[in-house]
Amino acid sequence: MSVVTRTEHDLIGDREIPADVYWGVHTLRALENFPITGIPIGVSPYLVESLAAVKQAAAAANHDLGLLDDERYAAIRGACEEIRSGALHDHFVVDVMQGGAGTSTNMNANEVIANRALELMGYKKGDYDTLHPNEHINLSQSTNDVYPTAVKIAIIMATHALLDAMEVLEASFAAKADEFHDVLKMGRTQLQDAVPMTLGQEFRTYSLMIGEDRARLSESVMLLHEINLGATAIGTMLNAPAGYVPSACGHLAKLTGLPLESAVDLIEATQDCGAFVQHSGTLKRVAVKLSKICNDLRLLSSGPRAGFNEINLPAVQAGSSIMPGKVNPVIPEVVNQVAFQIIGMDVTVSMAAEGGQLQLNAFEPVICYSLSAGLSRLREAVLVLAKRCVDGITANVELLRAEVENSIGLVTALNPYIGYAAATEVAKEALATGRGVAELVLERGLLPREKLEAILKPETLANLAPRPK
Amino acid sequence: MSVVTRTEHDLIGDREIPADVYWGVHTLRALENFPITGIPIGVSPYLVESLAAVKQAAAAANHDLGLLDDERYAAIRGACEEIRSGALHDHFVVDVMQGGAGTSTNMNANEVIANRALELMGYKKGDYDTLHPNEHINLSQSTNDVYPTAVKIAIIMATHALLDAMEVLEASFAAKADEFHDVLKMGRTQLQDAVPMTLGQEFRTYSLMIGEDRARLSESVMLLHEINLGATAIGTMLNAPAGYVPSACGHLAKLTGLPLESAVDLIEATQDCGAFVQHSGTLKRVAVKLSKICNDLRLLSSGPRAGFNEINLPAVQAGSSIMPGKVNPVIPEVVNQVAFQIIGMDVTVSMAAEGGQLQLNAFEPVICYSLSAGLSRLREAVLVLAKRCVDGITANVELLRAEVENSIGLVTALNPYIGYAAATEVAKEALATGRGVAELVLERGLLPREKLEAILKPETLANLAPRPK
Amino acid sequence: MSVVTRTEHDLIGDREIPADVYWGVHTLRALENFPITGIPIGVSPYLVESLAAVKQAAAAANHDLGLLDDERYAAIRGACEEIRSGALHDHFVVDVMQGGAGTSTNMNANEVIANRALELMGYKKGDYDTLHPNEHINLSQSTNDVYPTAVKIAIIMATHALLDAMEVLEASFAAKADEFHDVLKMGRTQLQDAVPMTLGQEFRTYSLMIGEDRARLSESVMLLHEINLGATAIGTMLNAPAGYVPSACGHLAKLTGLPLESAVDLIEATQDCGAFVQHSGTLKRVAVKLSKICNDLRLLSSGPRAGFNEINLPAVQAGSSIMPGKVNPVIPEVVNQVAFQIIGMDVTVSMAAEGGQLQLNAFEPVICYSLSAGLSRLREAVLVLAKRCVDGITANVELLRAEVENSIGLVTALNPYIGYAAATEVAKEALATGRGVAELVLERGLLPREKLEAILKPETLANLAPRPK
Amino acid sequence: MSVVTRTEHDLIGDREIPADVYWGVHTLRALENFPITGIPIGVSPYLVESLAAVKQAAAAANHDLGLLDDERYAAIRGACEEIRSGALHDHFVVDVMQGGAGTSTNMNANEVIANRALELMGYKKGDYDTLHPNEHINLSQSTNDVYPTAVKIAIIMATHALLDAMEVLEASFAAKADEFHDVLKMGRTQLQDAVPMTLGQEFRTYSLMIGEDRARLSESVMLLHEINLGATAIGTMLNAPAGYVPSACGHLAKLTGLPLESAVDLIEATQDCGAFVQHSGTLKRVAVKLSKICNDLRLLSSGPRAGFNEINLPAVQAGSSIMPGKVNPVIPEVVNQVAFQIIGMDVTVSMAAEGGQLQLNAFEPVICYSLSAGLSRLREAVLVLAKRCVDGITANVELLRAEVENSIGLVTALNPYIGYAAATEVAKEALATGRGVAELVLERGLLPREKLEAILKPETLANLAPRPK
Repeated sequence: MSVVTRTEHDLIGDREIPADVYWGVHTLRALENFPITGIPIGVSPYLVESLAAVKQAAAAANHDLGLLDDERYAAIRGACEEIRSGALHDHFVVDVMQGGAGTSTNMNANEVIANRALELMGYKKGDYDTLHPNEHINLSQSTNDVYPTAVKIAIIMATHALLDAMEVLEASFAAKADEFHDVLKMGRTQLQDAVPMTLGQEFRTYSLMIGEDRARLSESVMLLHEINLGATAIGTMLNAPAGYVPSACGHLAKLTGLPLESAVDLIEATQDCGAFVQHSGTLKRVAVKLSKICNDLRLLSSGPRAGFNEINLPAVQAGSSIMPGKVNPVIPEVVNQVAFQIIGMDVTVSMAAEGGQLQLNAFEPVICYSLSAGLSRLREAVLVLAKRCVDGITANVELLRAEVENSIGLVTALNPYIGYAAATEVAKEALATGRGVAELVLERGLLPREKLEAILKPETLANLAPRPK
Repeated sequence: MSVVTRTEHDLIGDREIPADVYWGVHTLRALENFPITGIPIGVSPYLVESLAAVKQAAAAANHDLGLLDDERYAAIRGACEEIRSGALHDHFVVDVMQGGAGTSTNMNANEVIANRALELMGYKKGDYDTLHPNEHINLSQSTNDVYPTAVKIAIIMATHALLDAMEVLEASFAAKADEFHDVLKMGRTQLQDAVPMTLGQEFRTYSLMIGEDRARLSESVMLLHEINLGATAIGTMLNAPAGYVPSACGHLAKLTGLPLESAVDLIEATQDCGAFVQHSGTLKRVAVKLSKICNDLRLLSSGPRAGFNEINLPAVQAGSSIMPGKVNPVIPEVVNQVAFQIIGMDVTVSMAAEGGQLQLNAFEPVICYSLSAGLSRLREAVLVLAKRCVDGITANVELLRAEVENSIGLVTALNPYIGYAAATEVAKEALATGRGVAELVLERGLLPREKLEAILKPETLANLAPRPK
Repeated sequence: MSVVTRTEHDLIGDREIPADVYWGVHTLRALENFPITGIPIGVSPYLVESLAAVKQAAAAANHDLGLLDDERYAAIRGACEEIRSGALHDHFVVDVMQGGAGTSTNMNANEVIANRALELMGYKKGDYDTLHPNEHINLSQSTNDVYPTAVKIAIIMATHALLDAMEVLEASFAAKADEFHDVLKMGRTQLQDAVPMTLGQEFRTYSLMIGEDRARLSESVMLLHEINLGATAIGTMLNAPAGYVPSACGHLAKLTGLPLESAVDLIEATQDCGAFVQHSGTLKRVAVKLSKICNDLRLLSSGPRAGFNEINLPAVQAGSSIMPGKVNPVIPEVVNQVAFQIIGMDVTVSMAAEGGQLQLNAFEPVICYSLSAGLSRLREAVLVLAKRCVDGITANVELLRAEVENSIGLVTALNPYIGYAAATEVAKEALATGRGVAELVLERGLLPREKLEAILKPETLANLAPRPK
Repeated sequence: MSVVTRTEHDLIGDREIPADVYWGVHTLRALENFPITGIPIGVSPYLVESLAAVKQAAAAANHDLGLLDDERYAAIRGACEEIRSGALHDHFVVDVMQGGAGTSTNMNANEVIANRALELMGYKKGDYDTLHPNEHINLSQSTNDVYPTAVKIAIIMATHALLDAMEVLEASFAAKADEFHDVLKMGRTQLQDAVPMTLGQEFRTYSLMIGEDRARLSESVMLLHEINLGATAIGTMLNAPAGYVPSACGHLAKLTGLPLESAVDLIEATQDCGAFVQHSGTLKRVAVKLSKICNDLRLLSSGPRAGFNEINLPAVQAGSSIMPGKVNPVIPEVVNQVAFQIIGMDVTVSMAAEGGQLQLNAFEPVICYSLSAGLSRLREAVLVLAKRCVDGITANVELLRAEVENSIGLVTALNPYIGYAAATEVAKEALATGRGVAELVLERGLLPREKLEAILKPETLANLAPRPK
């Protein structure tokens, strides 16, 4: 079978390109050079859309400055808008892992946009004398300003998607906190019974944690809004026309609806990966906290007989092919694993940032991939955690209350009334005999019954806030 | 458009399954529960093939022990052999990231094999009364022994593929070491000029490093040959018939051609992730060393004017859309990035292993994915490094020799003849004036010319071994 | 030789304590239980001082609320003020690595303060009937609120010390940026010659990077000002009197001069390590960037003959016992190593935070130690980098200018005037023949001399800002 | 107060050295350059002893080869033997964190040995005309071969100490496994009740894990026995006399009693950190497994009322200043934290190894410190875990047996007799009603009582091996 092709050439020589693809010779070289993961950059719609937005903004600035005529600008704009609407993503084929500081991603975008724009102008793909990937699509640009700018926008969009998911999870925990407002239980420190609290307080904590993490992630994503578009090769703006930097940045802010700003010093901005490292560190914080919460959920639902057995997670699939009726905490387990990935990826991001040399960091593609994958996976994990786990949690209220009544930790509340020494004696006897603290206190005549009952009222023990309306 | 379906049910209820897919209701639940990465387990042929091998071995053992009749055994064997030959991999659809300790992967395999075997027996997919995913395909098994066993075999196969690639790279460096045998150059410590050596010695080092790493990886992969097949749920072999463990292990060793062995203590083996952690640590070692080598290649080829400029890497793609003629070290750069990923993944593997509790580690899926992806990516990276970079390296011989003649480090070789004090004086003057060490030694009458020339002979300086034949 | 002792007892039994030490039986138990690093908590003056401040604030609140009489309060206050002035730090002897969520650190503080306060009251050490480590010094407190509060204050103080050092380094780089304002050199991307810039721009970047990192660290340290003092065991304030929380927090803010605030939800605050993880992540960012800068300094000073040789680091010690005159970049090297430690410690902190369970994180001691050591070491490293390295850097101005004139990257600047195609031809010939770009452009008649000279003016090439006054 | 000093000089100039110290001007420079941690190299007796052993072996080889006269050799040997016996360790004062690839450590050793040897010869400290730190103590050596060799020997010794401690812990767990041989309990997977086992089996697993880890650590420590002594600056043996390498290595093997071997390729050996990375990875494996075991111990001892409450850890200190009678798992907690440190340090070691450039790794000091600290801390942690925790563990036998009788997991054992469907029905009713599985099976007439009792016999359920004699 013969494949229809067109011929393209670069510095190395001529190559045949399948006639129906929008990418060209530079993309072909990259496919041959980087057969690493089999995952094309096109799997991330955010990155493809932000590349198209950057190219459209650059074209608009070039048009404003008289460097690009009306016809070519219209065609480029048209192609970029199609891509931003979801078209042609399967022509973004270079591997997510690539050398060259993003050059292959940039060239893939230049080629796809050029060939689609050529079609819009009524020409054939490959007619680069009319519209050239490098001369026109990449005009006034360098990979070194285009790529980091597009990556930042893609990460911003992925972060917003995660933030939305976190808001859902925060609400799920808050709803459970309301539901379990009065459910008294034992609090634990170091896995040892401590003093009473309510299950509502426990779930309120998870809701608050997610809320705090949202606040932190919202702060660190702001750092990514500082871009170096127009910096060209190393930040000296060599070959970018006067006026290009503010114009291109302004167009991009408008296109994306994001409060983007030009970096104060473009040389610094071109080599600096600080904002990525910071964002990765904050994402890691979120992962660490979610993992902690999932550890707790698995622990609290351990059992059903020989465990804590305080709460029940909804059954979402059969737990075992061999053990009838076994239900496992599979949703928290997958969240834990995504968290472990993100914590590992943070090391990858740190090493990639540390390895940057002089005026550029050549390792931004692995930073981009790590953050994109991490943000996307955590978003999915957070949503299934909310919808397929937290929303369906029920409490074993009787058992929880019995735990408190049966606890030795109750004695702590009596400290101020019967003294530390007497309290210790009661605790020892309770532990040795298996009897209850209240019973022993009454038996020893340490407190009258009504006083004791007042002290041991749930709302007092747990310092319970009134139920929110 | 209506899709033809069949109805399947599990503990949770009934579900419609597309009629043409080989997976069933448990797989469907997993697809809904774990929409995390979008990467199905089927992307790793090694894992799919090893799952089929384990199921085939288990069926053979069950048949030997009279638990499975001839007809069913033949059908299961037939289905497994098809899968092991590459068929039906696109029906292994559950996400690589999943909760449940691999249960979903195991059930996906059980379902695909059952439905294909049913077809081979002349029945329709879904006719589980005849052949049941759980009752027959999973007979005498538990996810907790099947899954780790299959993962180990998959990792072993992926490791062998990496070892083969490393052998290619080792040979590439060795060939260059021969080619550059006599090329004198300055050795450097702490990036400062030190004493002379040859470029052949430098490249020989890289070849030896890869060789040593191959040896270490070959050792650590052996630890994965100890399997827990037959352990069932927690290693007590509950419900596995007498004789099953040695029989299943024996069949599996035969099918895979691997020297697999039953673990001495199946309870320990079922919960222990030590071999994975060890192998990940060794893989990380390989990544660290490869990254170091690629750092060196990028450094030695820096320039072409304002850098070390000692060697030239082959141009495999255009380096810049803005800087004419620029060629970048894109292949070493992508290897660096794969190395950073693997170093991060090792943290992920460590955390997943550390998080295991009591009789099972629920986090083996992320261990499996991390090791599989790491091994596969490093293999690709190693091959492109050999074929698209190292094999085409050339040396700037004249410049390298001039460096040595021009160096101050030469004076070190004169230490034993003119003393440390006089050598220091010569070094200082050379540094201050830009003049050569040899010239200054002669001018100061510190050594006669013929003696000096004898000391400074390349083979003496570099302690050069004779060229290998 | 007989040692004079006093007898103390705890729940486990009686023990002899050397008569001259201020610590007591709980500290003795901890010494026996945790002989891990040999590093006592007393090596960190910040932690000891902040423990004393917390105890003093708690005593003040207890006194305000009528729980502590004037005499005892005066004695406790006196002891705490002595410790805050630097006294008795060598009596804080428990190991920095300890189980128990900081209980041993808290008890060590309680015991030292009690015994010193007893002396101030005219009693002997150990006269706990008069003043008790638990009943009086620890009144209204729990390790679970005292320890995290003290740790946060210690980390805040250590961070301020680091920030001061970073300001020094920022100024050192800025001074060099001014000094090297006009020194033209080649910029590099991916270690390949790119386009011209100035050494001043290069050093300005480092100054700006440090400045940005200071800003980020200043932000993340603010998160540590939210404390849980008064939360007692799990955040329900059990046994803390009404009014204690705001009173203790207010006294502590006044004593430390820090804008401390009570957490809104004390249950959440008692178990949450998010602020530590965030701060560790930001500290890691600083380390990553400093390591990148030091990598650059080592690279730029490589040589002196067979390297970049662009700048000279001051010689601060002999480089080699065997190579006369060799000077090594030992200061950047030690900074790199401190950075590697901090990046590793961030993994430690993440794991410790992830491992927290339910109402408390038992692993705060390793978080405290990691952050304290990291902050302190980085501070020292930053100061030696400024004072013993950056301040003494000199530039090889002639060589730098020759690099630019000799560079092929110059041709990039001619792109807009002679076209990409002609520029590429010139670049190829320059690379092949070793000749200069300007010379070839003139020879080919591509541009008139005066036009060429105008384009290649340093300030144009580097887009040089005017020298700041 | 005037301090008596002597004057020493180096390339930078003259300095006053306190007359009573054995170190000299190079050490003084290092003290000023590296005020990083405040931890002197002398805290590790292994490193100091191995430095002395290397120096003694080098001197012996130099003496054999006629480069060192009898008197000087005798003095050097005498000084080295004193140090190896524990003397003068407080004169090894340079910071553990240092730039210069170990030069400062080597020079500190050269100076201390020279000055002590001078005294033994009847001269004064500082009389370097007679015996010179560089010319005589460092003869035929370079930091680049001396330092890695000494570090390797120190790590070997520290590893042996850890291995001894692990053997103690392995025995402690084995003793408990024997003690708990017949104690039936529920096994758990994914924290959910699974099938029965014995507490003896559970503790046997821990013993076996430690044993396996000992085997792995014993293997990886062997890789450190390959040394590069005699390589001098970069491995070309420049200035080392013929015959020196085998002689020095032989003397060192004899002095240390270790099977040391010269590396086959000294250039490769001088720059390669592979053996350190491998050993760090194996140490991390040990840490991961120990942390997992400690997590289990804390979980199994959770309670005493609202937890698993299966085992009791011995009380080694008071658990809480506020909660009477509370006992916390402080020993496992400190082991967890040491493990987290080691896992973080492994990242540090990997980054330091990855950062090595060309013929030398400048970052070996942080590798040395990380491994030394990790090995030493883990040794202490392992010993306290054995002696202060595991040896005193007791089991709550009655509660454990009740768990099994009360468990739903029992039904798994009935699968082969009553079928999966019936078993599932029983499981569901048991879960819903809280009743026992055996009771329900009898009530439903699914099995006769004697058959049921036979199936549910402990030794059958747990597949219990006979008690070892």
